[in-house]
Amino acid sequence: MEIKLVKDILAANEAIAEQNKALFAEKGVYVVNLMGSPGAGKTTLLERTIEGLKEKRKMAVIEGDIATSRDAERIAAHAIPTVQINTGGECHLDGNMVRGGLEQLNFDGIELLVVENVGNLVCPAEFNIGEDVKVMIASVTEGDDKPLKYPLMFQVSSVLLLNKTDLLPHVDFDLERFRKEALKINPRLEVMPLSCKTGEGLDTWLQWLEERSGSREG
Amino acid sequence: MEIKLVKDILAANEAIAEQNKALFAEKGVYVVNLMGSPGAGKTTLLERTIEGLKEKRKMAVIEGDIATSRDAERIAAHAIPTVQINTGGECHLDGNMVRGGLEQLNFDGIELLVVENVGNLVCPAEFNIGEDVKVMIASVTEGDDKPLKYPLMFQVSSVLLLNKTDLLPHVDFDLERFRKEALKINPRLEVMPLSCKTGEGLDTWLQWLEERSGSREG
Repeated sequence: MEIKLVKDILAANEAIAEQNKALFAEKGVYVVNLMGSPGAGKTTLLERTIEGLKEKRKMAVIEGDIATSRDAERIAAHAIPTVQINTGGECHLDGNMVRGGLEQLNFDGIELLVVENVGNLVCPAEFNIGEDVKVMIASVTEGDDKPLKYPLMFQVSSVLLLNKTDLLPHVDFDLERFRKEALKINPRLEVMPLSCKTGEGLDTWLQWLEERSGSREG
Repeated sequence: MEIKLVKDILAANEAIAEQNKALFAEKGVYVVNLMGSPGAGKTTLLERTIEGLKEKRKMAVIEGDIATSRDAERIAAHAIPTVQINTGGECHLDGNMVRGGLEQLNFDGIELLVVENVGNLVCPAEFNIGEDVKVMIASVTEGDDKPLKYPLMFQVSSVLLLNKTDLLPHVDFDLERFRKEALKINPRLEVMPLSCKTGEGLDTWLQWLEERSGSREG
Protein backbone atom coordinates (compact mmCIF):
# COMPACT_ATOMS: atom_id res chain seq x y z
CA MET A 1 0.00 0.00 0.00
CA GLU A 2 2.67 2.44 1.03
CA ILE A 3 4.88 1.27 -1.82
CA LYS A 4 2.02 1.72 -4.31
CA LEU A 5 1.57 5.27 -3.09
CA VAL A 6 5.26 6.08 -3.38
CA LYS A 7 5.10 4.85 -6.98
CA ASP A 8 2.13 7.14 -7.66
CA ILE A 9 3.99 10.14 -6.25
CA LEU A 10 7.07 9.37 -8.33
CA ALA A 11 4.99 8.85 -11.48
CA ALA A 12 3.15 12.16 -10.94
CA ASN A 13 6.49 13.88 -10.42
CA GLU A 14 7.91 12.34 -13.56
CA ALA A 15 5.06 13.78 -15.65
CA ILE A 16 5.72 17.31 -14.35
CA ALA A 17 9.47 16.89 -14.78
CA GLU A 18 8.88 16.02 -18.45
CA GLN A 19 6.89 19.24 -18.88
CA ASN A 20 9.70 21.24 -17.28
CA LYS A 21 12.18 19.52 -19.59
CA ALA A 22 10.13 20.46 -22.67
CA LEU A 23 10.01 24.07 -21.48
CA PHE A 24 13.77 24.16 -20.94
CA ALA A 25 14.37 22.74 -24.42
CA GLU A 26 12.01 25.27 -25.96
CA LYS A 27 13.81 28.14 -24.23
CA GLY A 28 17.27 26.75 -25.01
CA VAL A 29 18.32 26.63 -21.36
CA TYR A 30 20.79 24.04 -20.08
CA VAL A 31 19.72 22.97 -16.58
CA VAL A 32 21.90 21.59 -13.80
CA ASN A 33 20.40 19.91 -10.73
CA LEU A 34 23.08 20.43 -8.05
CA MET A 35 22.84 18.06 -5.09
CA GLY A 36 24.85 17.12 -2.01
CA SER A 37 24.90 16.91 1.79
CA PRO A 38 24.41 20.00 3.96
CA GLY A 39 27.73 21.82 4.01
CA ALA A 40 29.29 20.05 1.03
CA GLY A 41 29.75 23.47 -0.55
CA LYS A 42 26.88 23.76 -3.03
CA THR A 43 26.35 27.51 -2.67
CA THR A 44 30.06 28.33 -2.66
CA LEU A 45 30.55 26.19 -5.78
CA LEU A 46 27.70 28.10 -7.36
CA GLU A 47 29.33 31.43 -6.50
CA ARG A 48 32.63 30.27 -8.03
CA THR A 49 30.76 29.02 -11.11
CA ILE A 50 29.04 32.36 -11.56
CA GLU A 51 32.34 34.22 -11.20
CA GLY A 52 33.93 31.90 -13.77
CA LEU A 53 31.14 31.82 -16.34
CA LYS A 54 29.02 34.94 -16.07
CA GLU A 55 30.87 36.73 -18.86
CA LYS A 56 30.41 33.69 -21.10
CA ARG A 57 26.91 32.41 -20.28
CA LYS A 58 23.74 34.19 -19.23
CA MET A 59 22.90 32.44 -15.98
CA ALA A 60 20.00 32.10 -13.55
CA VAL A 61 19.66 30.24 -10.28
CA ILE A 62 16.88 28.52 -8.34
CA GLU A 63 17.73 27.99 -4.67
CA GLY A 64 16.02 25.18 -2.81
CA ASP A 65 16.08 25.28 0.98
CA ILE A 66 13.85 24.05 3.76
CA ALA A 67 13.88 27.51 5.31
CA THR A 68 15.51 30.97 4.98
CA SER A 69 16.55 32.86 1.86
CA ARG A 70 20.21 33.08 2.83
CA ASP A 71 21.53 31.16 -0.14
CA ALA A 72 19.46 33.18 -2.59
CA GLU A 73 20.81 36.38 -1.03
CA ARG A 74 24.38 35.13 -1.48
CA ILE A 75 23.67 34.39 -5.17
CA ALA A 76 21.66 37.55 -5.87
CA ALA A 77 24.68 39.55 -4.68
CA HIS A 78 26.38 38.36 -7.88
CA ALA A 79 23.70 40.15 -9.96
CA ILE A 80 22.20 36.91 -11.29
CA PRO A 81 18.41 36.35 -11.51
CA THR A 82 17.64 34.18 -8.48
CA VAL A 83 14.50 32.56 -7.14
CA GLN A 84 14.30 31.06 -3.66
CA ILE A 85 12.07 28.05 -3.04
CA ASN A 86 11.42 27.19 0.60
CA THR A 87 10.15 23.63 0.89
CA GLY A 88 8.86 24.20 4.42
CA GLY A 89 10.18 20.89 5.73
CA GLU A 90 10.34 18.79 2.58
CA CYS A 91 13.72 17.10 2.15
CA HIS A 92 14.05 17.59 -1.61
CA LEU A 93 12.86 19.63 -4.58
CA ASP A 94 10.39 18.03 -6.94
CA GLY A 95 9.17 18.88 -10.42
CA ASN A 96 6.21 20.85 -9.16
CA MET A 97 8.23 23.06 -6.81
CA VAL A 98 10.66 23.85 -9.63
CA ARG A 99 7.76 24.66 -11.93
CA GLY A 100 6.53 27.13 -9.31
CA GLY A 101 9.99 28.70 -9.22
CA LEU A 102 10.12 28.95 -13.02
CA GLU A 103 6.99 31.09 -13.04
CA GLN A 104 8.94 33.77 -11.19
CA LEU A 105 11.89 33.66 -13.55
CA ASN A 106 12.35 35.64 -16.76
CA PHE A 107 13.93 33.19 -19.19
CA ASP A 108 14.76 35.59 -21.98
CA GLY A 109 18.26 34.86 -23.15
CA ILE A 110 19.11 32.60 -20.20
CA GLU A 111 21.52 29.88 -21.32
CA LEU A 112 22.35 28.16 -18.05
CA LEU A 113 20.07 27.52 -15.08
CA VAL A 114 21.48 25.94 -11.94
CA VAL A 115 18.99 24.54 -9.44
CA GLU A 116 20.56 24.09 -6.02
CA ASN A 117 18.67 21.30 -4.29
CA VAL A 118 18.03 20.88 -0.54
CA GLY A 119 21.13 19.70 1.33
CA ASN A 120 20.57 15.96 1.50
CA LEU A 121 22.55 13.03 0.13
CA VAL A 122 19.49 10.78 -0.07
CA CYS A 123 16.07 12.08 -1.11
CA PRO A 124 16.81 14.55 -3.94
CA ALA A 125 18.28 11.65 -5.95
CA GLU A 126 14.80 10.15 -6.30
CA PHE A 127 13.12 13.14 -7.94
CA ASN A 128 13.76 14.35 -11.47
CA ILE A 129 13.02 18.04 -11.98
CA GLY A 130 13.46 18.12 -15.76
CA GLU A 131 17.19 18.84 -15.60
CA ASP A 132 19.71 18.10 -18.34
CA VAL A 133 22.28 16.86 -15.88
CA LYS A 134 22.51 15.83 -12.23
CA VAL A 135 25.70 17.03 -10.57
CA MET A 136 26.61 16.01 -7.04
CA ILE A 137 29.09 17.64 -4.74
CA ALA A 138 30.75 15.89 -1.82
CA SER A 139 33.57 17.12 0.37
CA VAL A 140 36.65 15.28 1.61
CA THR A 141 35.61 16.02 5.19
CA GLU A 142 32.55 13.76 4.74
CA GLY A 143 34.77 10.68 4.51
CA ASP A 144 35.80 8.30 1.73
CA ASP A 145 33.17 5.66 2.59
CA LYS A 146 30.16 7.49 1.21
CA PRO A 147 29.67 5.98 -2.30
CA LEU A 148 28.66 2.51 -1.13
CA LYS A 149 26.64 3.86 1.79
CA TYR A 150 24.59 6.32 -0.27
CA PRO A 151 24.60 4.59 -3.65
CA LEU A 152 21.60 6.16 -5.40
CA MET A 153 23.04 9.68 -5.46
CA PHE A 154 26.27 8.41 -7.02
CA GLN A 155 24.28 6.28 -9.46
CA VAL A 156 22.03 9.02 -10.86
CA SER A 157 24.70 11.74 -11.09
CA SER A 158 26.81 12.39 -14.19
CA VAL A 159 29.43 14.54 -12.45
CA LEU A 160 30.87 14.17 -8.96
CA LEU A 161 32.61 17.29 -7.70
CA LEU A 162 34.85 16.39 -4.77
CA ASN A 163 35.24 19.63 -2.85
CA LYS A 164 37.52 20.93 -0.08
CA THR A 165 40.66 19.22 -1.38
CA ASP A 166 42.56 21.98 0.48
CA LEU A 167 41.67 20.10 3.68
CA LEU A 168 43.16 16.77 2.50
CA PRO A 169 46.32 17.20 4.63
CA HIS A 170 44.14 17.50 7.76
CA VAL A 171 41.70 14.59 7.29
CA ASP A 172 41.88 10.85 6.70
CA PHE A 173 40.55 10.54 3.19
CA ASP A 174 41.72 8.01 0.62
CA LEU A 175 41.03 9.67 -2.74
CA GLU A 176 41.76 6.50 -4.70
CA ARG A 177 39.41 4.39 -2.58
CA PHE A 178 36.68 7.01 -2.95
CA ARG A 179 37.10 7.27 -6.72
CA LYS A 180 37.23 3.50 -7.16
CA GLU A 181 34.09 2.86 -5.13
CA ALA A 182 32.21 5.71 -6.81
CA LEU A 183 33.08 4.30 -10.24
CA LYS A 184 32.04 0.82 -9.14
CA ILE A 185 28.54 2.20 -8.59
CA ASN A 186 28.54 4.37 -11.70
CA PRO A 187 31.28 3.74 -14.27
CA ARG A 188 30.22 6.80 -16.32
CA LEU A 189 30.65 9.23 -13.44
CA GLU A 190 33.11 12.07 -14.09
CA VAL A 191 34.99 12.67 -10.86
CA MET A 192 36.48 16.16 -10.46
CA PRO A 193 38.44 16.93 -7.28
CA LEU A 194 38.52 20.65 -6.55
CA SER A 195 38.71 23.30 -3.87
CA CYS A 196 36.25 26.19 -3.94
CA LYS A 197 38.51 27.90 -1.40
CA THR A 198 41.82 27.85 -3.30
CA GLY A 199 40.33 27.46 -6.80
CA GLU A 200 42.38 24.32 -7.48
CA GLY A 201 40.62 22.06 -10.01
CA LEU A 202 37.80 24.52 -10.71
CA ASP A 203 38.87 25.01 -14.35
CA THR A 204 38.00 21.43 -15.27
CA TRP A 205 34.45 21.91 -13.98
CA LEU A 206 34.01 25.33 -15.58
CA GLN A 207 35.19 24.06 -18.93
CA TRP A 208 32.91 21.02 -18.73
CA LEU A 209 29.91 23.22 -17.99
CA GLU A 210 30.77 25.90 -20.53
CA GLU A 211 30.96 23.35 -23.33
CA ARG A 212 27.60 21.82 -22.54
CA SER A 213 25.62 24.96 -21.80
CA GLY A 214 26.79 26.53 -25.03
CA SER A 215 25.64 23.67 -27.20
CA ARG A 216 21.90 24.41 -27.15
CA GLU A 217 19.88 26.61 -29.40
CA GLY A 218 16.85 28.52 -28.14
CA MET B 1 -4.72 14.18 0.32
CA GLU B 2 -0.99 13.75 0.42
CA ILE B 3 -0.81 15.69 3.67
CA LYS B 4 -3.47 13.44 5.20
CA LEU B 5 -1.45 10.40 4.25
CA VAL B 6 1.76 11.82 5.73
CA LYS B 7 -0.18 12.36 8.96
CA ASP B 8 -1.37 8.75 8.89
CA ILE B 9 2.20 7.49 8.43
CA LEU B 10 3.47 9.66 11.28
CA ALA B 11 0.61 8.57 13.57
CA ALA B 12 1.25 4.89 12.81
CA ASN B 13 4.93 5.43 13.53
CA GLU B 14 4.17 7.18 16.80
CA ALA B 15 2.17 4.17 18.02
CA ILE B 16 5.05 1.80 17.35
CA ALA B 17 7.55 4.24 18.89
CA GLU B 18 5.46 4.23 22.07
CA GLN B 19 5.62 0.43 22.19
CA ASN B 20 9.39 0.55 21.76
CA LYS B 21 9.58 3.13 24.54
CA ALA B 22 7.59 0.90 26.89
CA LEU B 23 9.92 -2.01 26.11
CA PHE B 24 13.00 0.12 26.79
CA ALA B 25 11.56 1.27 30.11
CA GLU B 26 10.70 -2.30 31.10
CA LYS B 27 14.25 -3.44 30.31
CA GLY B 28 15.84 -0.43 31.98
CA VAL B 29 17.72 0.62 28.86
CA TYR B 30 18.54 4.27 28.17
CA VAL B 31 18.22 4.89 24.43
CA VAL B 32 19.98 7.53 22.34
CA ASN B 33 18.84 8.36 18.80
CA LEU B 34 22.02 9.72 17.17
CA MET B 35 21.42 11.81 14.05
CA GLY B 36 23.38 14.03 11.68
CA SER B 37 24.51 14.62 8.09
CA PRO B 38 26.56 12.06 6.20
CA GLY B 39 30.15 12.44 7.37
CA ALA B 40 29.39 14.48 10.50
CA GLY B 41 31.18 11.78 12.48
CA LYS B 42 28.37 9.66 13.95
CA THR B 43 30.21 6.33 13.83
CA THR B 44 33.50 7.78 15.07
CA LEU B 45 31.67 9.50 17.95
CA LEU B 46 30.10 6.15 18.75
CA GLU B 47 33.51 4.46 18.78
CA ARG B 48 34.89 7.11 21.16
CA THR B 49 31.77 6.78 23.33
CA ILE B 50 32.21 3.01 23.55
CA GLU B 51 35.90 3.40 24.44
CA GLY B 52 35.01 5.93 27.13
CA LEU B 53 32.01 4.17 28.68
CA LYS B 54 32.23 0.46 28.06
CA GLU B 55 33.79 -0.26 31.47
CA LYS B 56 31.01 1.74 33.13
CA ARG B 57 27.88 0.92 31.11
CA LYS B 58 26.81 -2.25 29.34
CA MET B 59 26.20 -0.99 25.82
CA ALA B 60 24.56 -2.11 22.59
CA VAL B 61 24.27 -0.46 19.20
CA ILE B 62 21.79 -0.44 16.32
CA GLU B 63 23.30 0.84 13.07
CA GLY B 64 20.99 2.35 10.48
CA ASP B 65 22.29 2.68 6.93
CA ILE B 66 20.76 2.71 3.50
CA ALA B 67 23.24 0.05 2.38
CA THR B 68 26.34 -1.89 3.56
CA SER B 69 27.22 -3.18 7.02
CA ARG B 70 30.43 -1.16 7.26
CA ASP B 71 29.42 0.86 10.29
CA ALA B 72 28.22 -2.23 12.17
CA GLU B 73 31.55 -3.90 11.45
CA ARG B 74 33.41 -0.90 12.88
CA ILE B 75 31.30 -1.06 16.05
CA ALA B 76 31.34 -4.86 16.40
CA ALA B 77 35.15 -4.66 16.44
CA HIS B 78 34.76 -3.04 19.87
CA ALA B 79 33.07 -6.22 21.18
CA ILE B 80 29.67 -4.56 21.63
CA PRO B 81 26.41 -6.28 20.59
CA THR B 82 25.54 -4.64 17.27
CA VAL B 83 22.65 -4.97 14.86
CA GLN B 84 22.74 -3.51 11.36
CA ILE B 85 19.54 -2.25 9.76
CA ASN B 86 19.70 -1.55 6.02
CA THR B 87 16.82 0.66 4.99
CA GLY B 88 17.25 -0.18 1.31
CA GLY B 89 16.81 3.41 0.16
CA GLU B 90 14.75 4.91 2.96
CA CYS B 91 16.22 8.16 4.25
CA HIS B 92 15.56 7.57 7.96
CA LEU B 93 14.88 4.92 10.59
CA ASP B 94 11.33 4.60 11.89
CA GLY B 95 9.82 2.86 14.88
CA ASN B 96 9.08 -0.30 12.96
CA MET B 97 12.60 -0.73 11.60
CA VAL B 98 14.02 -0.27 15.09
CA ARG B 99 11.53 -2.81 16.45
CA GLY B 100 12.82 -5.27 13.85
CA GLY B 101 16.37 -4.58 15.00
CA LEU B 102 15.42 -5.07 18.66
CA GLU B 103 14.24 -8.60 17.91
CA GLN B 104 17.82 -9.50 17.05
CA LEU B 105 19.27 -7.98 20.21
CA ASN B 106 19.73 -9.66 23.56
CA PHE B 107 18.79 -7.01 26.11
CA ASP B 108 19.91 -8.78 29.25
CA GLY B 109 21.80 -6.31 31.37
CA ILE B 110 22.07 -3.68 28.62
CA GLU B 111 22.02 -0.19 30.16
CA LEU B 112 22.70 2.00 27.17
CA LEU B 113 21.53 1.52 23.57
CA VAL B 114 22.71 3.92 20.89
CA VAL B 115 20.79 3.91 17.62
CA GLU B 116 22.81 5.51 14.82
CA ASN B 117 20.34 6.89 12.32
CA VAL B 118 20.79 7.25 8.55
CA GLY B 119 23.07 10.15 7.62
CA ASN B 120 20.57 12.92 6.90
CA LEU B 121 19.99 16.31 8.54
CA VAL B 122 16.32 16.38 7.53
CA CYS B 123 14.11 13.28 7.56
CA PRO B 124 15.21 11.39 10.72
CA ALA B 125 14.06 14.39 12.79
CA GLU B 126 10.44 13.61 11.86
CA PHE B 127 10.33 10.04 13.20
CA ASN B 128 10.41 9.06 16.85
CA ILE B 129 11.78 5.58 17.46
CA GLY B 130 10.96 5.37 21.19
CA GLU B 131 14.26 6.93 22.27
CA ASP B 132 14.91 8.70 25.57
CA VAL B 133 16.92 11.41 23.93
CA LYS B 134 17.66 12.75 20.47
CA VAL B 135 21.30 13.73 20.01
CA MET B 136 22.51 15.45 16.87
CA ILE B 137 26.05 15.75 15.64
CA ALA B 138 27.24 18.41 13.23
CA SER B 139 30.77 19.24 12.17
CA VAL B 140 32.47 22.60 11.78
CA THR B 141 33.22 21.77 8.13
CA GLU B 142 29.46 21.85 7.38
CA GLY B 143 29.33 25.60 7.99
CA ASP B 144 27.89 27.84 10.69
CA ASP B 145 24.68 28.61 8.78
CA LYS B 146 22.98 25.25 9.33
CA PRO B 147 20.65 25.86 12.34
CA LEU B 148 18.28 28.25 10.57
CA LYS B 149 18.44 26.29 7.32
CA TYR B 150 17.62 22.89 8.86
CA PRO B 151 15.58 23.98 11.89
CA LEU B 152 13.63 20.82 12.75
CA MET B 153 16.70 18.74 13.62
CA PHE B 154 17.95 21.48 15.97
CA GLN B 155 14.47 21.84 17.43
CA VAL B 156 13.88 18.19 18.33
CA SER B 157 17.38 17.45 19.65
CA SER B 158 18.38 17.80 23.30
CA VAL B 159 22.12 17.71 22.70
CA LEU B 160 24.11 19.17 19.83
CA LEU B 161 27.60 17.73 19.49
CA LEU B 162 29.72 20.04 17.35
CA ASN B 163 32.45 17.80 15.98
CA LYS B 164 35.80 18.32 14.22
CA THR B 165 36.84 21.36 16.25
CA ASP B 166 40.42 20.37 15.38
CA LEU B 167 39.68 21.72 11.88
CA LEU B 168 38.55 25.16 13.12
CA PRO B 169 41.86 26.82 12.15
CA HIS B 170 41.35 25.65 8.54
CA VAL B 171 37.71 26.61 7.92
CA ASP B 172 35.54 29.72 8.15
CA PHE B 173 33.25 28.85 11.03
CA ASP B 174 31.89 31.32 13.56
CA LEU B 175 31.25 29.24 16.68
CA GLU B 176 29.39 32.03 18.46
CA ARG B 177 27.08 32.65 15.51
CA PHE B 178 26.37 28.91 15.25
CA ARG B 179 25.65 28.57 18.97
CA LYS B 180 23.48 31.67 19.06
CA GLU B 181 21.35 30.63 16.08
CA ALA B 182 21.00 27.06 17.37
CA LEU B 183 19.80 28.37 20.74
CA LYS B 184 17.40 30.73 19.01
CA ILE B 185 15.67 27.68 17.53
CA ASN B 186 15.93 25.59 20.69
CA PRO B 187 16.87 27.39 23.91
CA ARG B 188 17.14 24.09 25.83
CA LEU B 189 19.75 22.63 23.48
CA GLU B 190 23.02 21.63 25.16
CA VAL B 191 25.80 22.54 22.76
CA MET B 192 29.03 20.58 23.21
CA PRO B 193 31.98 21.39 20.90
CA LEU B 194 34.38 18.45 20.61
CA SER B 195 36.87 16.67 18.41
CA CYS B 196 36.60 12.91 18.00
CA LYS B 197 40.09 13.05 16.47
CA THR B 198 41.98 14.77 19.30
CA GLY B 199 39.55 13.88 22.10
CA GLU B 200 39.11 17.55 23.09
CA GLY B 201 35.71 18.14 24.68
CA LEU B 202 34.70 14.47 24.72
CA ASP B 203 34.66 14.32 28.53
CA THR B 204 31.68 16.67 28.76
CA TRP B 205 29.64 14.40 26.49
CA LEU B 206 30.76 11.17 28.19
CA GLN B 207 29.88 12.54 31.61
CA TRP B 208 26.48 13.76 30.39
CA LEU B 209 25.68 10.34 28.97
CA GLU B 210 27.05 8.37 31.91
CA GLU B 211 24.89 10.30 34.38
CA ARG B 212 21.70 9.73 32.41
CA SER B 213 22.19 6.11 31.38
CA GLY B 214 22.95 5.13 34.97
CA SER B 215 19.77 6.62 36.39
CA ARG B 216 17.33 3.92 35.23
CA GLU B 217 16.37 0.72 36.98
CA GLY B 218 15.57 -2.43 34.99
